[in-house]
Amino acid sequence: MIKAAVIGATGYTGLELIRLSENHPYLEISVITSREKAGKSLKEVFAWSGKYAELVFEEPVVEKIAERVQVAFLCVPSGKAQEMAYSSLQRGVKVIDFSADFRFKNSRSYENTYNIKHNYPELCEKAVYGLTEIFGEKIKKAELVANPGCYPTSVLLPLIPLLKNNLIEKEPIIIDSKSGTSGAGRKAENYYSFCEVNEDFKAYKIASHRHNPEIEEKLNLFSDEQIQTIFTPHLLPINRGIFSTIYVKFKTEAEKIYKFLKEFYKESPFVEIVPIGKIPRIAEVKGTNLCKIGIFEDKKRGWGILVSVIDNLIKGASGQAIQNFNLMFGFPEDTGLPKTPLFV
Amino acid sequence: MIKAAVIGATGYTGLELIRLSENHPYLEISVITSREKAGKSLKEVFAWSGKYAELVFEEPVVEKIAERVQVAFLCVPSGKAQEMAYSSLQRGVKVIDFSADFRFKNSRSYENTYNIKHNYPELCEKAVYGLTEIFGEKIKKAELVANPGCYPTSVLLPLIPLLKNNLIEKEPIIIDSKSGTSGAGRKAENYYSFCEVNEDFKAYKIASHRHNPEIEEKLNLFSDEQIQTIFTPHLLPINRGIFSTIYVKFKTEAEKIYKFLKEFYKESPFVEIVPIGKIPRIAEVKGTNLCKIGIFEDKKRGWGILVSVIDNLIKGASGQAIQNFNLMFGFPEDTGLPKTPLFV
Amino acid sequence: MIKAAVIGATGYTGLELIRLSENHPYLEISVITSREKAGKSLKEVFAWSGKYAELVFEEPVVEKIAERVQVAFLCVPSGKAQEMAYSSLQRGVKVIDFSADFRFKNSRSYENTYNIKHNYPELCEKAVYGLTEIFGEKIKKAELVANPGCYPTSVLLPLIPLLKNNLIEKEPIIIDSKSGTSGAGRKAENYYSFCEVNEDFKAYKIASHRHNPEIEEKLNLFSDEQIQTIFTPHLLPINRGIFSTIYVKFKTEAEKIYKFLKEFYKESPFVEIVPIGKIPRIAEVKGTNLCKIGIFEDKKRGWGILVSVIDNLIKGASGQAIQNFNLMFGFPEDTGLPKTPLFV
Amino acid sequence: MIKAAVIGATGYTGLELIRLSENHPYLEISVITSREKAGKSLKEVFAWSGKYAELVFEEPVVEKIAERVQVAFLCVPSGKAQEMAYSSLQRGVKVIDFSADFRFKNSRSYENTYNIKHNYPELCEKAVYGLTEIFGEKIKKAELVANPGCYPTSVLLPLIPLLKNNLIEKEPIIIDSKSGTSGAGRKAENYYSFCEVNEDFKAYKIASHRHNPEIEEKLNLFSDEQIQTIFTPHLLPINRGIFSTIYVKFKTEAEKIYKFLKEFYKESPFVEIVPIGKIPRIAEVKGTNLCKIGIFEDKKRGWGILVSVIDNLIKGASGQAIQNFNLMFGFPEDTGLPKTPLFV
Repeated sequence: MIKAAVIGATGYTGLELIRLSENHPYLEISVITSREKAGKSLKEVFAWSGKYAELVFEEPVVEKIAERVQVAFLCVPSGKAQEMAYSSLQRGVKVIDFSADFRFKNSRSYENTYNIKHNYPELCEKAVYGLTEIFGEKIKKAELVANPGCYPTSVLLPLIPLLKNNLIEKEPIIIDSKSGTSGAGRKAENYYSFCEVNEDFKAYKIASHRHNPEIEEKLNLFSDEQIQTIFTPHLLPINRGIFSTIYVKFKTEAEKIYKFLKEFYKESPFVEIVPIGKIPRIAEVKGTNLCKIGIFEDKKRGWGILVSVIDNLIKGASGQAIQNFNLMFGFPEDTGLPKTPLFV
Repeated sequence: MIKAAVIGATGYTGLELIRLSENHPYLEISVITSREKAGKSLKEVFAWSGKYAELVFEEPVVEKIAERVQVAFLCVPSGKAQEMAYSSLQRGVKVIDFSADFRFKNSRSYENTYNIKHNYPELCEKAVYGLTEIFGEKIKKAELVANPGCYPTSVLLPLIPLLKNNLIEKEPIIIDSKSGTSGAGRKAENYYSFCEVNEDFKAYKIASHRHNPEIEEKLNLFSDEQIQTIFTPHLLPINRGIFSTIYVKFKTEAEKIYKFLKEFYKESPFVEIVPIGKIPRIAEVKGTNLCKIGIFEDKKRGWGILVSVIDNLIKGASGQAIQNFNLMFGFPEDTGLPKTPLFV
Repeated sequence: MIKAAVIGATGYTGLELIRLSENHPYLEISVITSREKAGKSLKEVFAWSGKYAELVFEEPVVEKIAERVQVAFLCVPSGKAQEMAYSSLQRGVKVIDFSADFRFKNSRSYENTYNIKHNYPELCEKAVYGLTEIFGEKIKKAELVANPGCYPTSVLLPLIPLLKNNLIEKEPIIIDSKSGTSGAGRKAENYYSFCEVNEDFKAYKIASHRHNPEIEEKLNLFSDEQIQTIFTPHLLPINRGIFSTIYVKFKTEAEKIYKFLKEFYKESPFVEIVPIGKIPRIAEVKGTNLCKIGIFEDKKRGWGILVSVIDNLIKGASGQAIQNFNLMFGFPEDTGLPKTPLFV
Repeated sequence: MIKAAVIGATGYTGLELIRLSENHPYLEISVITSREKAGKSLKEVFAWSGKYAELVFEEPVVEKIAERVQVAFLCVPSGKAQEMAYSSLQRGVKVIDFSADFRFKNSRSYENTYNIKHNYPELCEKAVYGLTEIFGEKIKKAELVANPGCYPTSVLLPLIPLLKNNLIEKEPIIIDSKSGTSGAGRKAENYYSFCEVNEDFKAYKIASHRHNPEIEEKLNLFSDEQIQTIFTPHLLPINRGIFSTIYVKFKTEAEKIYKFLKEFYKESPFVEIVPIGKIPRIAEVKGTNLCKIGIFEDKKRGWGILVSVIDNLIKGASGQAIQNFNLMFGFPEDTGLPKTPLFV
């Protein structure tokens, strides 16, 4: 049993991590932290039931936590994770960070994108980007894993193999993504209030979302030319799920793309390439760690369309974190992770 | 054309009032106020279109507003309306108050219920309770109308005629109400955030909601014995609408109750008694100023069940305010008010 | 490993049973049936992933299924289960029936309520009503378990112990229940279409719902006087969850009711009595097999209010079926069943 | 007062047309038809209230209707409108057709797209495409108006002026559209059931939707080169609204595009070009006949992004039909049409 701390456990990803952990045979949550709720139990704060209901929030003081755990999941905002990661690693605690703090190899890109100074550029170098299916071998040996953003997860899984193997043109790549509202985190703002999300649909941060530089940096690892992606995120009036519609130019037939991706991901328990003609939907991945990818072609007009769906709180956050945990601690990749959808 | 001010125009009831006014041939919104948004237009703040889009929010200073309007709609929180009402009336401006400040004849009841001191108890005496169908004659002559709470509107319309005419037992009266989330107002709180209202349903303030004393005070006006109502409000994951299920003991057959209510409301353009066997639903009143009432009987078990539905923002707030405005200024009661539902 | 058949596996309860089974260490789904989809796999029909994705629907022919399984879960409509249950039992296959066919001891009540002739009245006698917490001892020895209706589950768990122990008056008992739309099953009707459920709320079958006689029959087992319950079901615009607000007369203080229920259910892993003052909500039980019960008192007015919440597809159907399966096959009651909520 | 018939008045567009008509000073609905509901009133079938509640559905027999009306709104499926339009026109009744039957100038394109034979190709020539802002002058004189599809309305309003004036490249044009569920019409199918739309999001008819040839035919009218558009429709879990995100290459700066469109639509009461930097959302047009258009630029990557929102039942169907009616009968274009949003 590996003991773990969830740092910042009152947000949606922290809670989802705790929920998922309950079905994991080797992952035990020993510490949960919250500055605001310190001293109260999960049951008191969230009327939580199940295995971890009586667990009590502590202050996020690494010194007091480190000796009790082998791994820390950092579910804190970008900018707040740097120091915690550093000091956990110093004490021999492995780190899986949900923030953007270590997602960029290039700390300057991070600083430009997040407008936050990075105090540990050397850790950026050391960190492994936790897109499990792509960087699995490195993740197995990692001390510090930067869990990917939810949008990038949905976008990179279909694009990386195709770019790397020269099956699509390097430009244009247009990404129209739609995310459930839990992707925004737990926020008390009118913008995210029920009446102002329900029965509405809105785009935000058009051409300026911080996940786009993350997408580009990772795609560039697999291309000799500089990759640029046009990225538009939208807010869906649902709790969970990301749907990315990606417009590219295929360099071969859709059928070959299908076969290639099918082969590429044949050992990956959580990536499903759906047969040509079928369209994956959020309901098929809700409650699972799956990423389902569909391939379409507008032959007449010469474009390829890729559709990718994930549950943003699972494959887009806490599930992928556990998938990475599994590799880091030598367990089978799919240990304790759900694949069966919450159909309704 | 009657010129009006909307004081506190950035909440849902204020905005709905402005929207509805656009279809009113004699009501012109001349002033809108907001401390926070003063200096900005409706278009700037809410991307508003239509007739009033360019109207600019002002500070809520009665002195500066009074001379420009004949009536003020006060859409401010309970406790904040007292002074504004007093000072508007002093300057000859009629007042329709959306808060609870003047709903109680007995200012002591108000103070106990809202835990706010009342500085104008004499105005409580003078104010007319704006349940249009019941107090219409007094409203015609009123200077100050206390617009009813949304729950009380849905509950009093079916109960008052039945109690007054001795067609139901005086106890028990059990009211199980369900309200759309806009009933809570425009609030930036996790409790009202999309993810925590959507796919959930919750009761709140069981046996302690402040609309219950309001309901009881008004029912008592029509009964020689003291009336007590058991009242449970619930939060629905929809934007608009109240559904009240009311359990009482009929003193006569359902058919007679039906005929009586039908007769009682025959001149009321907005109250519909639906035929025995039909169940009114929120979708039938959404977007309208209607109150639809259904009558059911569990003969075997000896209980009557009344079902009442309204759009909380219209008949439960801004529509009823305009209905009262119509009477106060000598227009036909239904001037400018919608009766056709937004079916979807 | 106990092998099981899911008869009628294309409805919501059948699918949920399959989903939940995946986490059960001793329950294996070996057979799924569907007349309409026979020959196709779960993956083909529902784009299903996970352990059972490749399972192929068969025709529901008991003769061909019986030898391959030890238990059959019947997820077919009321009236269709009788014959299948009989013929499964004849072949030594235990039966857990989701329909109403064996819920009534008195087959005449069944016939009156469902307007369907019962061909196996003797099986009604033999069947055990599968409200696990109450009839657990009998369930352990049962060959045929009648899984309770979803509404009755939410209502009987709070009421039976209180009635049995004389802590509430025998009348009135008023039950105002609200159910998520999956409770209606998988139906292609305008009434259940997205646009006509979304942003609406409606009551249905007021004073005539078929779950009320079921509730009354079961309550009567615990009372010397005839119990009558007033029952109003409503349709919530959410997928999952039942919320029952129950109005009764307490014969003692709320605090004692709380302590009594807490004690009564102390060995029950899935019933939680929430502390006085706290209100359980659907979000707290969504995705779990829990029933959470809250106790309130309107002291001034002399009424008790009980609030009970469940996930209708789990504790109200497939979860409770597995709970019963656990007892019937000698496993711990909570084997494989979730207690941690899907918070969002 | 112009008397009108609504042919096929039990669908969402027919009902919305009736609802909107109520606020129109010169449009009177005299006839409503429905094969299935003939003999029943709007009140009986839809619990309808308001001016037209007592209107009774008739059989759709043109001979019996023609003499009583001056205009017929055809809200019937594509393929069913041809004959009705022909026979109405023969009798001197003007026609506004909601189906696709007369949207294509080229009846062969219609036949290929809809796989329905066209019996009145000469009427296709005669029909005027009812995109009011673009074809207003012709609509004024039209006997037969083909009301545009909902998606094409949202797409053509931003694109036509830009293409025509050579402000964007002719390719690529990528259109990612999202529609509320009412866009699918009133359908009793599992695919559109509440539980299977709610909390889900899905694409459909990728690269094969029938609105794409309609979009292309109309764009081609304004281009010397053949225009091809990549079009992906998605289904939103909301009742109303279309949101189209359109990716193009600007030939000038965003600011100039903004000024040009602003100028182009300066006389159009229902098209709003929102200031650079602002993103229009569905909530801003819900309940209105508006189309709001936002302009964005990803300068670094060289792409323009246009965002267009409408209420699919109003500007995308019944509102635009009334807008066309206004022109055809000599009334101001905006007579009786709403511009103020249903903010919640």
